[in-house]
Amino acid sequence: MKAVILAAGYGKRMGGDTPKPLVELYGLPLIEHKIRKLDGYEIIVVYHDERIKDHIQKRFPRIKLVYNPYPERENGYSLYCVKDLIKEGESFILLMADHYYDEGFYRDINPINQTTVYVSAKCYQEDEATKVKVQGDKVIKIGKGIDDYDYFDTGFFVCSYESLVYAERAVSQREKVKLSDIMQLLADDGRLSYKVMDEFWIDIDTKEDLKKAEEFIRRSLIKPTDGIISKFLNRKISTRITPFLLRYDFITPNRITVFVSLLGFLTSVLFYFKYYLLAGIMTQIVSIIDGCDGEVARIKNLSSRFGAVLDSVLDRYVDIFIISAIFLSIEKDIFLSLSFIPALTGSVLVSYVSHLSGWRPYLATRDIRLFLVMVFSILFSLYENMIYAFFAVIAVITHVSVIFTLLRLRS
Amino acid sequence: MKAVILAAGYGKRMGGDTPKPLVELYGLPLIEHKIRKLDGYEIIVVYHDERIKDHIQKRFPRIKLVYNPYPERENGYSLYCVKDLIKEGESFILLMADHYYDEGFYRDINPINQTTVYVSAKCYQEDEATKVKVQGDKVIKIGKGIDDYDYFDTGFFVCSYESLVYAERAVSQREKVKLSDIMQLLADDGRLSYKVMDEFWIDIDTKEDLKKAEEFIRRSLIKPTDGIISKFLNRKISTRITPFLLRYDFITPNRITVFVSLLGFLTSVLFYFKYYLLAGIMTQIVSIIDGCDGEVARIKNLSSRFGAVLDSVLDRYVDIFIISAIFLSIEKDIFLSLSFIPALTGSVLVSYVSHLSGWRPYLATRDIRLFLVMVFSILFSLYENMIYAFFAVIAVITHVSVIFTLLRLRS
Repeated sequence: MKAVILAAGYGKRMGGDTPKPLVELYGLPLIEHKIRKLDGYEIIVVYHDERIKDHIQKRFPRIKLVYNPYPERENGYSLYCVKDLIKEGESFILLMADHYYDEGFYRDINPINQTTVYVSAKCYQEDEATKVKVQGDKVIKIGKGIDDYDYFDTGFFVCSYESLVYAERAVSQREKVKLSDIMQLLADDGRLSYKVMDEFWIDIDTKEDLKKAEEFIRRSLIKPTDGIISKFLNRKISTRITPFLLRYDFITPNRITVFVSLLGFLTSVLFYFKYYLLAGIMTQIVSIIDGCDGEVARIKNLSSRFGAVLDSVLDRYVDIFIISAIFLSIEKDIFLSLSFIPALTGSVLVSYVSHLSGWRPYLATRDIRLFLVMVFSILFSLYENMIYAFFAVIAVITHVSVIFTLLRLRS
Repeated sequence: MKAVILAAGYGKRMGGDTPKPLVELYGLPLIEHKIRKLDGYEIIVVYHDERIKDHIQKRFPRIKLVYNPYPERENGYSLYCVKDLIKEGESFILLMADHYYDEGFYRDINPINQTTVYVSAKCYQEDEATKVKVQGDKVIKIGKGIDDYDYFDTGFFVCSYESLVYAERAVSQREKVKLSDIMQLLADDGRLSYKVMDEFWIDIDTKEDLKKAEEFIRRSLIKPTDGIISKFLNRKISTRITPFLLRYDFITPNRITVFVSLLGFLTSVLFYFKYYLLAGIMTQIVSIIDGCDGEVARIKNLSSRFGAVLDSVLDRYVDIFIISAIFLSIEKDIFLSLSFIPALTGSVLVSYVSHLSGWRPYLATRDIRLFLVMVFSILFSLYENMIYAFFAVIAVITHVSVIFTLLRLRS
């Protein structure tokens, strides 16, 4: 299926000279958020500004670029520009380069018989928005000046070839043709359907809009499975590091995973040589940037099964190295072994059981375990025998979590 | 949906006085293999012999029993006996108490519009079997004396209410009415469909048939994920223990799991006190009877997610206890710790990665790991320092398996 991104509009209200599609949102040019999520589609970008062309050519050489020589004729003319690239009977996605759409928009898209506009009951700039009035399963009115409306037009469409026929007719009759003018023509003939979306979307016109979108992205990166330390501490920091990592394509999620793990192994060496305090702080840093791989993967749509397993396995190895290094750092007696073994195995088993059951071990998620390492490392540096207490605490919370999960599964 | 089991036939060729449905197959009366697999259906059993009634009443009080006073009128009359228990428009499963059907027969059963006979190209006693001749998607002939046939009748049907109307007509016209006579009447009117099954089935008439069915069951209990020791040693023994466990309903799969684990923990105590040889033999015994819980669960259709997770988790604990006990049994130095930790963590991680990836770690499946424990325990008892070698071997095979799985996942 093809996907057409309209990026030929003006719109300089953002300040600065950068064309809006290239304005940076959370580390990536606005237009790239769409390109990344449209992985697997044949993307066509309609542009006017040469800087957009240069940027796309450099970063995404496989994307087809279509020049719109008349941006002043409005975005309906941009749609008309792709007419020769779509075959009769073909459906395609149509979306705006300067909007941000949450992942839900890109799910379950199928070829359609009738052009469909994605609408929403929510909108951040109601005055500016294009409104939609529906009747049954059809749109009857679409445009800015509608008082009696049901939804807002999100600027996301799945179009039939027919929409291009209407576009051709519109540009032959008028100088300025808005996309909503073409859609109104379709609606007049009962040829425009709609789909109601509940997901976040925003038309980015101002710096405030950009901020709103950024805040949304940051919040969306907190996973429902995140533990309490992760939610209230780690994510707050990692989601502020991630935009910097997103700027560089060589910083892949898997490379972040490997880097964080190396940092973890280094941390275990510090523990072994009794730099407890430094090692404790390092542990918390590892715990924080451990979130970045998943965040980059989600934003750039690079999640993979291999990446997920690699992350899980390396996390386990880092946990094992840290706990073992603490054990090996002091004089061993039988009691130390007897507390070390349950702490070590509990740390691995709690993840194992969580994967088997699909449940999160509230008490002993990794963020909490690593946070405890940091807290206790302060105590180790004062009094080495606190290591016994540390092992005991880790052993108890992990094995209790395993048993609770089993009991919960049984009931 | 209802399921009707016909258990009113004579048939004493098995020798002995026991009615055929109660003859024991792999630890369970023949009829119970069907009853267990029809969990969730409203089961109706048509019987003549009081011993069948007594047995069912005692073991499965919720099953409806229907008395057939005229078994000499053949099994078509048995079908007629359930007429008042099926509502118009209702479909039901119909199967024979003295046949054995593999699990596949019981899958994907849906209400039908037209009576459907399950047929097979395979049959163990071709002379005795009922044959089926088809044309397009209909059966045109069904009966014993057909020379030009396509399939064999497995005695497994999904019937429409209509089949009972035909049964009524047949019993009002003739004294002896075979099931195949009724089916032929349906076929004559173009009202009999068929479904081709590739799964194992057998009509059990003789002791040889019983033996064949038992062999099939035993082979079917070898899982494709079984390791090499499991396949060639453990399963050969465990599948011969399981029929004895099947006889007692209080021996549930989860209780077997817990019992085997307790035996495993006891084994670790023996290791700790340096009864290496005895502990090694015990380890292999644990490894063998560890298969029985799953075997009982499959035959009695008692598999559960909780059971599977419980088994996995307790297996990990037993592994941890055994390896840790070996470690704790001798004087510790730094080298022992450095080989013990990777052996311990590798044993858990290999299962963790196997669950994450869905792949079996060929080199280091649990049957192989426990077999190595047994082999090395002989060496420990001769020369304690072999414990270092043991840890090294376990560490290498497990971590190499983890790395291989990651590499395989990547490609």
